[in-house]
Amino acid sequence: MAGGSLAARTRRDRALAIARSASAIRAPESDAVRRWLTTPGPASRMTADVVPLTALQGWRRDPATGDLHHESGRFFTVQGLTAEIPGAPVDRWSQPIISQPEIGILGLLARESDGVLEFLMQLKREPGNHNGVQLAPTVQATRSNYTRVHGGRSVPFLEFFRDPPPHGLVADVRQSEQGAWFFRKRNRNMIVLTDGHVDPPEEFRWLTLGQVHRALAEDDLVNMDARTVLSCLPFADAGLARELGGGSGFRAALVRSCDEDEPSRHTTDDLLMWITDARSRHEIRTSRAPLDGLPHWRRTDEKISHESGLFFDVVGVDVRAGKREVLRWAQPMIRPHGEGVVAFLAKPIDGVLHVLAHARVEPGYVDVIELAPTVQCTPANLACLPADARPPFLDEVLGAGPERIRYAATLSEEGGRFHHARNRYLVVETDVEDAESGDYRWVALHQLAALVRHSHYVNVQARSLLACLHSLFGGSGRGGAALPT
Amino acid sequence: MAGGSLAARTRRDRALAIARSASAIRAPESDAVRRWLTTPGPASRMTADVVPLTALQGWRRDPATGDLHHESGRFFTVQGLTAEIPGAPVDRWSQPIISQPEIGILGLLARESDGVLEFLMQLKREPGNHNGVQLAPTVQATRSNYTRVHGGRSVPFLEFFRDPPPHGLVADVRQSEQGAWFFRKRNRNMIVLTDGHVDPPEEFRWLTLGQVHRALAEDDLVNMDARTVLSCLPFADAGLARELGGGSGFRAALVRSCDEDEPSRHTTDDLLMWITDARSRHEIRTSRAPLDGLPHWRRTDEKISHESGLFFDVVGVDVRAGKREVLRWAQPMIRPHGEGVVAFLAKPIDGVLHVLAHARVEPGYVDVIELAPTVQCTPANLACLPADARPPFLDEVLGAGPERIRYAATLSEEGGRFHHARNRYLVVETDVEDAESGDYRWVALHQLAALVRHSHYVNVQARSLLACLHSLFGGSGRGGAALPT
Repeated sequence: MAGGSLAARTRRDRALAIARSASAIRAPESDAVRRWLTTPGPASRMTADVVPLTALQGWRRDPATGDLHHESGRFFTVQGLTAEIPGAPVDRWSQPIISQPEIGILGLLARESDGVLEFLMQLKREPGNHNGVQLAPTVQATRSNYTRVHGGRSVPFLEFFRDPPPHGLVADVRQSEQGAWFFRKRNRNMIVLTDGHVDPPEEFRWLTLGQVHRALAEDDLVNMDARTVLSCLPFADAGLARELGGGSGFRAALVRSCDEDEPSRHTTDDLLMWITDARSRHEIRTSRAPLDGLPHWRRTDEKISHESGLFFDVVGVDVRAGKREVLRWAQPMIRPHGEGVVAFLAKPIDGVLHVLAHARVEPGYVDVIELAPTVQCTPANLACLPADARPPFLDEVLGAGPERIRYAATLSEEGGRFHHARNRYLVVETDVEDAESGDYRWVALHQLAALVRHSHYVNVQARSLLACLHSLFGGSGRGGAALPT
Repeated sequence: MAGGSLAARTRRDRALAIARSASAIRAPESDAVRRWLTTPGPASRMTADVVPLTALQGWRRDPATGDLHHESGRFFTVQGLTAEIPGAPVDRWSQPIISQPEIGILGLLARESDGVLEFLMQLKREPGNHNGVQLAPTVQATRSNYTRVHGGRSVPFLEFFRDPPPHGLVADVRQSEQGAWFFRKRNRNMIVLTDGHVDPPEEFRWLTLGQVHRALAEDDLVNMDARTVLSCLPFADAGLARELGGGSGFRAALVRSCDEDEPSRHTTDDLLMWITDARSRHEIRTSRAPLDGLPHWRRTDEKISHESGLFFDVVGVDVRAGKREVLRWAQPMIRPHGEGVVAFLAKPIDGVLHVLAHARVEPGYVDVIELAPTVQCTPANLACLPADARPPFLDEVLGAGPERIRYAATLSEEGGRFHHARNRYLVVETDVEDAESGDYRWVALHQLAALVRHSHYVNVQARSLLACLHSLFGGSGRGGAALPT
């Protein structure tokens, strides 16, 4: 069956095809997928050693500021930032931050095969991954990558995203990444449907959405880039519940929440005005500062770290890879201390699942706030913060019994910039009343998905959780379920 | 009748109330309105004299850069900017630009009176107006205004926008202003519905939308701030054409174009992906530069001007006002040379009016491009630009016969920052085929209106034209029609 026909079909048909793909596990194939996932071939051999910052080949320390930049002037810079948020519990601080103004492509190639939508996933080893290989989208390319600044190989399948086939674009939107560690970094999230024949090399494989969702239930298996692209899938649509719904309980509320015709606590217009209000109520002033001499940060030949020993270090990493864009390179990375907690409180309201979104200020956002999960923090850091910086709802999340936990897995953040950065991702069903206040609102999933069609609304952690929530659509239950063996 | 009831009503009812207000001219009242518009009282006396930049009281010239800033550190700064757009006809230039990071409020108060929606308009004299007084929204306040940095009077009616009544918010969105003259300036555009009794002072008056639209047909009578707020009115809605439509020709196509159920050339999802593509295809790099020594700009004690005598000057203005926030102040202003042309080509497609939107790069935009009118330029400036910088469709607009001109009026830009800045605003009906190319797309009005609910999509000139197009809704025909006398 030609994928082109799907490309030309209506939005509704596309949403149904996506939903069908989410239900397709293909049990007979699962053994092969499991083997592929767990026994990566020689293609993905890589060592990543932490080395002193002063030993990073190709990187220069600016003599005036101490900023770290690549000798080509490309890739990214580690610089200093000072942020002020008048009235906040911590109203002024300084920190290192990554500046990467180039906008890369995170691309997922899709096709229709035997009537089922499939996605071309890649097994990718990144220097920051604590466990080696993870499932990545088809293409993960910085602009420096695909203009070949480092003289590496060309990026496979990039042509589908640089010059998409007519009517083949399913999603194309520039999304922010971690605003606490990146200054205004964005990547272009693209999903492209092809009806041409694609014969992938061994580190790529066509998977149904159901198979990807199974992987998402495991710890550290689906990487951040894959999760953010998956969140851009036009999963939700009007009338979906009529086609696929029925039943009761959590899954029924989830299906209805993906249906634009179902009621929501707030209209989308009201949510947009709430976001405007939050962007106006909160003021954040950021300014560049020299990386050398940031208050409360210590710099040695080895690394840059906070005097408390908390938050994160900037370290150097020396990488040797078997078959990758280049064979050896070095780079600075952010190495966080402690595992974070990223959680949505969720609740059916009038039978439609809503999540409690937080209008969150981060210094690297383009426009003051983005919608974040209900809780997003690293509990260990709270030790050195004032008591009123303790996030609301953290206790509700940490204290939730297993019967309330609808999704739970430990997932890794971007392994190309962050070293062993992991968060516990949770969806916790709650019956809390009066959860809304100035910066918290109940949002239906189709509303969150509608905002993801635009830039600057939904942060990368919330997009990850949106993909995780969609992964429950197929009915496989809460996270932690193993792939079929 | 209580406005509160309207506030609580559905989006559809609101759209119908807006449409009804657009048709309400109230002929018996028109004489009084005409007198009020043309014989402003002593309240609005103001003189604004152009003075040397070096004579501006309260303003300092930074000794290192030459930048102009207020001694309080507030209001705005005139600084230098260097812009690079690889591959553009003019791929690198420098210019003065206004930096005003504070986000002000442009607020329009509405009520329902005898079943008709009315808006509280203000007669406001601004130092940059070439004709004295113009119709302004209820509130026009910079943050410095309402935090009273200059020690002036409080801003009337500001409380409705700082603390809107429950369910009273009709629109609330942060919109960009001129990206050629402002660096990332935005104002919060708000429309608030009240059901309280408001007894306005003489320079304020409740007008129906039809009355405001009549004024919009005249030259230089409705100011930019009023136009941008009017463009945020939720004019369009699903089902509107069924209620109000019928007939044929331009107005029927206009009414259908305000109806979200009517067909459009492109889906809104496709338009969003086109915008992402344009933001990715175009690259613009901007950096601050010292105002002193900008290449091709000359600075004297009097002013800063381009060596060609074209584009604009930065001049000083000394203001004395009878009854305003303060009695006397001075400020720099941008004084453009020559009148601009701002035009949408419009065409019914399948009976639904579409306008040809241009994905336009300006150095002051937050995110590379915004949707602009088909043509937006100052023809006189073309003399010193390369031939391929001549805007497409300019000849089509300038050569249009009167039978194709659906709206035409000369309108003023922001009189608080720009001195005698005027553009000819036009809507020209066309039958041109194949008008679309990389940066041009046909867009239905309800799609443009949907984008105006978000920041950073529709530029201030296109928003003005959207308000002008809505002004044709009442059926008063093309611009230039006088107010009833």
